[in-house]
Amino acid sequence: HRGVDPTGETVYKKTTSSTLKAAIQLGITHTVGSLNQKPERDVLLQDFEVVESIFFPCEGSNLTPGHHYGDFRFKTYAPIAFRYFREMFGIRPDDYMYSLCNEPLIELSSSGASGSLFYLSSDDEFIVKTVQHKEAEFLQKLLPGYFMNLNQNKRTLLPKFYGLYCVQAAGKNIRIVVMNNLLPSSVRMHVKFDLKGSTHKRRANPKEREKAVPTFKDLDFMQDMSDGLFLEADTHNAVCKTIQRDCLLLQSFKIMDYSLLVGIHNLDQACREQNTEAAAEGAMRPQVQKSLYSTAIEAIQTETGGVEPVDQTGGIPARNSKGERLLVYIGIIDILQSYRFEHKPFLPTQDTVSVHRPSFYAERFQKFMSNVVFKKVPGKVYFILFSHPGIQSGRPDLLLQSLPHSGSAVNTPTTPTFLSLTPTIHTLSHSQDTSMSEGEGGSETPSRHHDSSTPQRLDGAFHLGLIIKSK
Amino acid sequence: HRGVDPTGETVYKKTTSSTLKAAIQLGITHTVGSLNQKPERDVLLQDFEVVESIFFPCEGSNLTPGHHYGDFRFKTYAPIAFRYFREMFGIRPDDYMYSLCNEPLIELSSSGASGSLFYLSSDDEFIVKTVQHKEAEFLQKLLPGYFMNLNQNKRTLLPKFYGLYCVQAAGKNIRIVVMNNLLPSSVRMHVKFDLKGSTHKRRANPKEREKAVPTFKDLDFMQDMSDGLFLEADTHNAVCKTIQRDCLLLQSFKIMDYSLLVGIHNLDQACREQNTEAAAEGAMRPQVQKSLYSTAIEAIQTETGGVEPVDQTGGIPARNSKGERLLVYIGIIDILQSYRFEHKPFLPTQDTVSVHRPSFYAERFQKFMSNVVFKKVPGKVYFILFSHPGIQSGRPDLLLQSLPHSGSAVNTPTTPTFLSLTPTIHTLSHSQDTSMSEGEGGSETPSRHHDSSTPQRLDGAFHLGLIIKSK
Repeated sequence: HRGVDPTGETVYKKTTSSTLKAAIQLGITHTVGSLNQKPERDVLLQDFEVVESIFFPCEGSNLTPGHHYGDFRFKTYAPIAFRYFREMFGIRPDDYMYSLCNEPLIELSSSGASGSLFYLSSDDEFIVKTVQHKEAEFLQKLLPGYFMNLNQNKRTLLPKFYGLYCVQAAGKNIRIVVMNNLLPSSVRMHVKFDLKGSTHKRRANPKEREKAVPTFKDLDFMQDMSDGLFLEADTHNAVCKTIQRDCLLLQSFKIMDYSLLVGIHNLDQACREQNTEAAAEGAMRPQVQKSLYSTAIEAIQTETGGVEPVDQTGGIPARNSKGERLLVYIGIIDILQSYRFEHKPFLPTQDTVSVHRPSFYAERFQKFMSNVVFKKVPGKVYFILFSHPGIQSGRPDLLLQSLPHSGSAVNTPTTPTFLSLTPTIHTLSHSQDTSMSEGEGGSETPSRHHDSSTPQRLDGAFHLGLIIKSK
Repeated sequence: HRGVDPTGETVYKKTTSSTLKAAIQLGITHTVGSLNQKPERDVLLQDFEVVESIFFPCEGSNLTPGHHYGDFRFKTYAPIAFRYFREMFGIRPDDYMYSLCNEPLIELSSSGASGSLFYLSSDDEFIVKTVQHKEAEFLQKLLPGYFMNLNQNKRTLLPKFYGLYCVQAAGKNIRIVVMNNLLPSSVRMHVKFDLKGSTHKRRANPKEREKAVPTFKDLDFMQDMSDGLFLEADTHNAVCKTIQRDCLLLQSFKIMDYSLLVGIHNLDQACREQNTEAAAEGAMRPQVQKSLYSTAIEAIQTETGGVEPVDQTGGIPARNSKGERLLVYIGIIDILQSYRFEHKPFLPTQDTVSVHRPSFYAERFQKFMSNVVFKKVPGKVYFILFSHPGIQSGRPDLLLQSLPHSGSAVNTPTTPTFLSLTPTIHTLSHSQDTSMSEGEGGSETPSRHHDSSTPQRLDGAFHLGLIIKSK
């Protein structure tokens, strides 16, 4: 459905990208606003099937403002249910509306083979994606199961669906879904993978490899990271358990062809880059994304309390086989698109073949992630949190503490030391660990993050400070 | 379906009560046991529709023990879903099985007009009730909505459904539901009401009035308790909000004709009775039910933290118009039986009449409870908790503290004073309130509770101690 018009603007189903963005912003502003006026109430089973519709004539109406685009109609699917989901995900209505509607939506060029159009909210929190009729229909059917999963499996790695809408313009229906942004563009991903647990044609093609940060696939992973990603035992267990629970849900809805998106930020490499680039254009440190919207780290905070939140950007602390420190960002993606062509909509009774294929897919997926991608490592991968003076609470900066290599870990505290929310960097002197660098003051210098593949983040208030001292 | 055989034993659908009890106990033992062997996993949408079936030949089988009754088949509806519900309600599998299957089930005579057979577990926690085909079918349809309500409305006053089963014997299906026991038989109810918010024929009939503790109805309430039951403002708000949320769910499933069961234990009256009866046959104090299974008090513990748990038996502290102290036990009952005859099973689209009738019913019900039955009273209705030496934690005894009447409340602490879990009665001397009676030692004497309408509880370990000093 996607094309480019003579002026070079993207066109989707005859609607220009600028018109679509405007319709989305007008529509979401209206629907969130009108929902705000309704009293809070519990979600009922029927709410999953509700569709609200409002007409936006360009001249305006009693309910809608005038605008400079063609008339359109905006539909909101299951408004009460998605309000509940947003609340479960900690998204306040005002923040949702502001992020999506009061700042420009940024069109992403790298939309993959799906033909979907992707937008990113200016604050990096939300992804807006066009979906096909079948996908939207399937998401509606999925909602009761999604509700149940959210209430039972709090650490789920499934996409966070914040809203499902439809813009009717120029006689066409453009359905969009609003989701979380898994890979904060403020954190440089040194390598990315889209993993399915399959080896058939699972290698990034030459065109993908030309990109600044290509998304590699299963065969690339097995070749380039054959030792896998090392996680602490507790973290490994939690990640694998979460994937298992998510796969059970996906399997129960006969979903296949989903992937685990893995973004890896290499802290040691970032530090080397920083040293190199600092001379040229100042310190390079990724900013910290709002913890509110992050995914991966929540997934590893087990109910049993084994693992503490460490990284506020949502990254999971890990190591590669060289012992380099990593932050790994993961999430299960593309759970709707297998319903585009080959599947019938979910029905309680289907033939045995279509029951067995999803279970085969889920099992292979789980095994690959638990055995090949993620490996258990003994010991701890830990960090110290601290805050700058005057910093807003909830966004403490991240300071990496030098870790003794395994074997020399005799005097290392067995649990991470958290100095969370204490007001100054000097709090670090209370740390038992004397291996802290004295040079951390440098992290107070405002810095910028440049990454050609993603929009540049200029908020400038919060930084990921990396202080590493080699043994 | 209920009758009596020549020996005087109750017969239900050609099956004697003793056979039915045995089948229930064998069946539940088996189903809970086999569920225990399966790994924990999340409930899926499909789980609500599962029915497991096992045959119990009297000679026994590989899977089932032999027994002295006729062959029967035992069906368990939605086993995984009900396991989840029991867990949500804090019922451990072992406790569930033990309470229902390792001690006799007590047949209750007062089954009302429904023709249902009622059993009470020996430990007073569970009610087993026969339900009709339509009711069982409707409960199955209700389960997804029930799941959603439980996850959103933690204080719900709806029945706690712990299990739905079917005994197939003598060519008949006997469906049973296991629920919570709302009115602990260990606490003497001085008066009981079944309230709907309707006045049409809502007066207890002469036969009911002959009972030791009749269940009165709306017109009786309006006549005998015309001033209503006085609750603290926070409690009142919480109770009304909970009823409102429950009614929304009931309305969404087009349920009508449900009642609020209200059991009232009058503490002042109990104290007078105690003084009178103590001379004749020793102290009379109701025992305390396990807090785990109680309902009403949970419902008034708002998320906002306004109200603290006070009474471990599940009673809500209240007053009548004479200023007497009450414990009020409430719950919404009979939510399945409106589906017996007049309704079609729940369907998303029905005619407007049947949509409006449930909403009318719900609104009238709420208004009656919020305005007529429960009234707001300024100030606090409070209690002091203390424990006997050697008492098990979780079951502190209840000691009523004398309350100054409103107007003389200047020196009264504004919040309840809790001396929870402190080991001896002497802790009470730390209380600021000097109006405490010195006679509280008497509450350490083991006591029994006699109530002809309910089975006698002889556990004897825990007592409700009442120490009241008039001003």
